[in-house]
Amino acid sequence: MYKVDLNCDMGESFGAYKIGNDEEILQFITSANIACGFHGGDPSVMNKTVKLALEKNVAVGAHVGFQDLVGFGRRNMHISPREVYDITVYQIGALYGFVKAYGGRMNHVKPHGSLYNMAARSEELSRAIVEAVYKVNPELILFGLSGSKLVKEGQKVGIKVANEVFADRTYTDKGTLTPRKEENALIDDRNEASKQVIRMIKDRKVISASGNEIDIKADTICIHGDGEHALAFARRIRDELKNNDIIIKSI
Amino acid sequence: MYKVDLNCDMGESFGAYKIGNDEEILQFITSANIACGFHGGDPSVMNKTVKLALEKNVAVGAHVGFQDLVGFGRRNMHISPREVYDITVYQIGALYGFVKAYGGRMNHVKPHGSLYNMAARSEELSRAIVEAVYKVNPELILFGLSGSKLVKEGQKVGIKVANEVFADRTYTDKGTLTPRKEENALIDDRNEASKQVIRMIKDRKVISASGNEIDIKADTICIHGDGEHALAFARRIRDELKNNDIIIKSI
Amino acid sequence: MYKVDLNCDMGESFGAYKIGNDEEILQFITSANIACGFHGGDPSVMNKTVKLALEKNVAVGAHVGFQDLVGFGRRNMHISPREVYDITVYQIGALYGFVKAYGGRMNHVKPHGSLYNMAARSEELSRAIVEAVYKVNPELILFGLSGSKLVKEGQKVGIKVANEVFADRTYTDKGTLTPRKEENALIDDRNEASKQVIRMIKDRKVISASGNEIDIKADTICIHGDGEHALAFARRIRDELKNNDIIIKSI
Amino acid sequence: MYKVDLNCDMGESFGAYKIGNDEEILQFITSANIACGFHGGDPSVMNKTVKLALEKNVAVGAHVGFQDLVGFGRRNMHISPREVYDITVYQIGALYGFVKAYGGRMNHVKPHGSLYNMAARSEELSRAIVEAVYKVNPELILFGLSGSKLVKEGQKVGIKVANEVFADRTYTDKGTLTPRKEENALIDDRNEASKQVIRMIKDRKVISASGNEIDIKADTICIHGDGEHALAFARRIRDELKNNDIIIKSI
Repeated sequence: MYKVDLNCDMGESFGAYKIGNDEEILQFITSANIACGFHGGDPSVMNKTVKLALEKNVAVGAHVGFQDLVGFGRRNMHISPREVYDITVYQIGALYGFVKAYGGRMNHVKPHGSLYNMAARSEELSRAIVEAVYKVNPELILFGLSGSKLVKEGQKVGIKVANEVFADRTYTDKGTLTPRKEENALIDDRNEASKQVIRMIKDRKVISASGNEIDIKADTICIHGDGEHALAFARRIRDELKNNDIIIKSI
Repeated sequence: MYKVDLNCDMGESFGAYKIGNDEEILQFITSANIACGFHGGDPSVMNKTVKLALEKNVAVGAHVGFQDLVGFGRRNMHISPREVYDITVYQIGALYGFVKAYGGRMNHVKPHGSLYNMAARSEELSRAIVEAVYKVNPELILFGLSGSKLVKEGQKVGIKVANEVFADRTYTDKGTLTPRKEENALIDDRNEASKQVIRMIKDRKVISASGNEIDIKADTICIHGDGEHALAFARRIRDELKNNDIIIKSI
Repeated sequence: MYKVDLNCDMGESFGAYKIGNDEEILQFITSANIACGFHGGDPSVMNKTVKLALEKNVAVGAHVGFQDLVGFGRRNMHISPREVYDITVYQIGALYGFVKAYGGRMNHVKPHGSLYNMAARSEELSRAIVEAVYKVNPELILFGLSGSKLVKEGQKVGIKVANEVFADRTYTDKGTLTPRKEENALIDDRNEASKQVIRMIKDRKVISASGNEIDIKADTICIHGDGEHALAFARRIRDELKNNDIIIKSI
Repeated sequence: MYKVDLNCDMGESFGAYKIGNDEEILQFITSANIACGFHGGDPSVMNKTVKLALEKNVAVGAHVGFQDLVGFGRRNMHISPREVYDITVYQIGALYGFVKAYGGRMNHVKPHGSLYNMAARSEELSRAIVEAVYKVNPELILFGLSGSKLVKEGQKVGIKVANEVFADRTYTDKGTLTPRKEENALIDDRNEASKQVIRMIKDRKVISASGNEIDIKADTICIHGDGEHALAFARRIRDELKNNDIIIKSI
């Protein structure tokens, strides 16, 4: 029996600024990665988002990012592993406050944006994040790019990890994502995207952008929460998974 | 046998900016109120300060303030009780992350600056803070101005509270602090300051600025950590308390 | 011949966060109040918004607010007149940089949100804002609530002022806006809103919420730029003004 | 006749946080690089610092940095040239507001910290900064590392530039600064530091860390304003320059 988790970034609104369709997208997913006030989100948005997720029995995780609101955590910042450890502990703790206040349980941690990408390639940054997760709560599951250094460092230390894959992104021969600036980085055709996902789960394979079959592990699929087609695509992926007898549940 | 707690605000440095003599003052106190990144402090400062406090067996508390770094949390902001609840949960949680990472225990929560003063006078804001403490961890002790609404609201809900007094501030007939802008707000004479504190602990009385004897309860004394005489005064208070057979220990 | 200015707050987007329909609303207005990075806006949004406004020959003004992004400048902050002066000079200067870079001319200054409301009632804060405008560029026009202290303090010092009125808000007998929290604060009926505006311009009168006719001066009308009906309402007001032979032009 | 400018970074205090000895150091220098609220400084500090500098007839310049207060602008951030242009225009404008309010004249622009170092090596970032200076005010002098890309791009566009040298840093054979993390990056011996500076001005030469004589141009010397020996060293450099008949004046 195959199974997979569906995760989505959310709680990224800030003050008067709204991003995403959190309430709607929560119907389709099993894990919510909630922004913690550094790259997006604020205490009131966090409170509201944690409440919504817990009410819908969606697993709650901390989406930790660089302290760069104007850049939405998407600009590379050269900060030390020690600083990465500190901002990770801080953000996990901050979200934990709201989860605890609702009597809920925190499930996972996922780095956001540039921190996610930088950690995927850096053992040093990965170790800092893994150490933060381990020290604050070794039961938390660390989400990272499938096969990345983040996942490997987590496994070395012995915390639970989830290999994350993307439905609408193409892969290189090394199993990394094709950079967004390249032409064929995105899969616009939903049929293709669905097929890619099903294949990753069932066959543990993906066809790279250059046409080679490579190994990949898919514990959780990242769904995008904003953009006009986000909800339709979430529904589509969900339906396809069910049609292929793949159980959708949190890890 | 009389006893009292000595607390001090700390961890208020930020990035390249240094405030206070945290390491030195920790020798004299029993409770450290650690800034949580809103009015002062940052994740790296918090990490370092929690570590120092735990190493010296000083009780660790969250010093929660308004999100106003440039104003150091000392400017009144009209934010809703709901927002006060949210920023309090967030900051307690953030500090908890570091305490947990060191395998330590969090002891208390103290509002900072304008939030402290506004809560002292407002049942609504006090209830928001009390609710946050209660929901995140009902074992935490809430520090508030002795006899203030914050302390009373905490007692109503049944959480532990600590009545805080000041050695170097004068009191009005109502038991509130004489506002800083008034001439006689501060007690510069250290003999006077020491005497006032001893009296508050032993007799549960203080002589107001207008000369009347009023009732007051002193569970914890606030010591200032910056300024050139901070360390000398901390030592002095500590010595005087010991000379008067008052046990200094955290609550 | 009657004439009036139509102004709208814009440039309030921030990083990945979008607010308002700036490009569309610019077709209908004659003055753009551009956020300066304190309550909203960021350097890149400012650059883009200044460019758009200048291209459409819309007068450019600095929309100066409290440094409270998460509160969108809508939470009262007790900051000193000196600090109000400083943040006003800073924000006018910052916007001036972009206007100058395009070889344009800055036209006006309008306080935002809580700063606007607090200044309307406080001579001290009004004087601080007036002094900032006067010192940085005495040719700038200060926009303030019609008849408010801000307008009066500007007149005392001799800078140009513009009395601002609202189409969709009701007025008290004193000529101030009915607070938003009161039931009848808003005029939802567009016919009523249009009529109120025409009357304020032609007769210099408005019927207060309690039914009394009071004097009012209308140099500029505030149009809202966000919300789903913003564009339709802007078009409607514009058409009604033209139908009533009122010339729409910047001051 | 030889001449040189002495510049110092200042106005880096923030709210309750104090850095540097601005008032004292102003006696020794001819150009003040004033922080603009992004990496340090706030509107009130800027106001005070501009006033002090103008009173002492010290040339005022904008010290523009990354928007990274917690990192003090010293962490590399991968932001686009367009964003660099925008933050430079913004910060020059913001400081201009205060200079204009005092009826003063702005003299120069100097990038701070990581922006300074990144621009020194990148034509693209340098062009963005040069364009910002040129567009806002082509009379402003751009300060950059002597011989760097920033200086060269400024010269190409035809704005005035100042080649900046350091008394207490060693140089590589390429004329760049030895990175701080290397052992011999700093010159601790004040005699050596003074000699290096005199030589750079008179002979236009410097001995690199590896012992080779290389060409260098010294229009302005950077003096550090914080640290306990800052004032003594500033005085020393000033005296040595005078003893060597080098005129100290702004550019």
